Amino acid sequence: MPLLVTGSIGIDSVSTPHGRAENVLGGSAVYFSFAASQYVPVRLVGVVGEDFPDPFREMLAARNIDLSGLEVRPGSRTFRWHGRYDGSMEQAETVQVHLNVLAERGPKLPPAYADSDAVFLANTHATLQRELLGQLKGPTLAVCDTMNLWIEHERESLLATLRAVTGVILNDAEARQLTACRNLIEAGEAILHLGPRFVMIKKGEHGALLTTAEGATAMPGFPTKEVRDPTGAGDSFAGGVLGFLSAEGKSDLPSLRRAMVHGTVAASFVIEGFSLERVRHLTRKEIDARVKQFTNMLRAD
Amino acid sequence: MPLLVTGSIGIDSVSTPHGRAENVLGGSAVYFSFAASQYVPVRLVGVVGEDFPDPFREMLAARNIDLSGLEVRPGSRTFRWHGRYDGSMEQAETVQVHLNVLAERGPKLPPAYADSDAVFLANTHATLQRELLGQLKGPTLAVCDTMNLWIEHERESLLATLRAVTGVILNDAEARQLTACRNLIEAGEAILHLGPRFVMIKKGEHGALLTTAEGATAMPGFPTKEVRDPTGAGDSFAGGVLGFLSAEGKSDLPSLRRAMVHGTVAASFVIEGFSLERVRHLTRKEIDARVKQFTNMLRAD
Repeated sequence: MPLLVTGSIGIDSVSTPHGRAENVLGGSAVYFSFAASQYVPVRLVGVVGEDFPDPFREMLAARNIDLSGLEVRPGSRTFRWHGRYDGSMEQAETVQVHLNVLAERGPKLPPAYADSDAVFLANTHATLQRELLGQLKGPTLAVCDTMNLWIEHERESLLATLRAVTGVILNDAEARQLTACRNLIEAGEAILHLGPRFVMIKKGEHGALLTTAEGATAMPGFPTKEVRDPTGAGDSFAGGVLGFLSAEGKSDLPSLRRAMVHGTVAASFVIEGFSLERVRHLTRKEIDARVKQFTNMLRAD
Repeated sequence: MPLLVTGSIGIDSVSTPHGRAENVLGGSAVYFSFAASQYVPVRLVGVVGEDFPDPFREMLAARNIDLSGLEVRPGSRTFRWHGRYDGSMEQAETVQVHLNVLAERGPKLPPAYADSDAVFLANTHATLQRELLGQLKGPTLAVCDTMNLWIEHERESLLATLRAVTGVILNDAEARQLTACRNLIEAGEAILHLGPRFVMIKKGEHGALLTTAEGATAMPGFPTKEVRDPTGAGDSFAGGVLGFLSAEGKSDLPSLRRAMVHGTVAASFVIEGFSLERVRHLTRKEIDARVKQFTNMLRAD
């Protein structure tokens, strides 16, 4: 089933201890789309300015990504982010951010997309997430991300969004902030009580936790030495998860566990290069080989 | 095969957000012994003062722990530690420590123990670790722990110990300090080059990494809400690992992976209560049930 994603599409500049990349393609919906399009066709809904470079559009179009929901707004400029990672690579420091077109009205949903059966609402204002969700005919799978800004300042709206989704994928700091629970197993349960049927908490290099009504399960990160640029790891994880679930057509506990493997592998690839350099030509064969390696590694019986 | 352990035996006072325990049994060799004695007979080598309470001795004797190497030194006092955990429960703050008998000469190895085939050298001065190892006839499995103090001040001696052991089990901060590598996969490889055949890096709630010549594999922590007192988690992990390996009689990669499951489960039990309250009556049946639960949880194929 086709998978719809909406979120940011941007032009990034990033520096890490391994180097720097300037004016490269980025944004939550972009990283998600590259990962998810390995599994199912992806419908990308977002808005850029008239400065959005043609080569970036071509990079997206070269994958299994439908761009009829990509609005190029005349007179506007594309979202830009400049980030920096220190030695620990754990969290980006935002050096500069220009919201540009993201501060204007949201993207319009192409009418043909209303039948999308799965949707990922990447991090944006919770009200915009809910508005987009409301334009769909009733997806089987609706998953959202969020961030500290909305947890702190738009809590009521975020809670309404959480009541409307099937699942949520967020990081450890966000889960703790949302629930005021230090223990992440408690945090996962607390979020489950807010509405979603499943909660995935991302812990960076330490892997992820999954909480459902059946309890909590943990998964380690893929052990990797070669972290060149962590940007997009979380959105690639979500892309692997949603892509796999959409292809499977179900989201029971075993499917969710397997989806987390694909999310983990998607994240492990994207961090091996700056921006999308490692994943833009990545093949499904490479993914499947690493999935097999990781799945074998997980076994301990 | 019988498993020898040497390390601290102490009287602890601990406070955590869940309560406090005063003058309870503790020490690295004690936590290790409770976990390992679920699998094989444990030979405990250590020294206490004449103030060591009889009920503590009885608690140890009630398990599969041989106390003929437990020296009660007249005129000396037992090691005492007073620690406190804040909300994050990640690291103990040492409020007070009295080395007492630990600052005197080390324990004597009973001659009958020289044939021990497996040994765990819990954290102590690297020279003492090596001296004890030298009194054994040539164990198949010799594993050590260490700490920041020896990494910083006794580096040469520690390196000599690392050349003499089969494996090392240490935590993430220690692995980074020892190798100056931030990335733990790199750190594991660097330690492998110092001598041991396997390296296990403990990451607390985030699980553990195993590095061998065959590469690195990761394991998550057991997802638990009920962390009452983290004291002894690392030594219990080591106890589960070494106990399992001693019972298996081999330490190839699949055995090491399975051993990490037992270590993870041992740690998950001990943190459910203060001191040894959760594990002193723990049954092998309870352990095996959780091992099965955790092993099933790990599968994602």
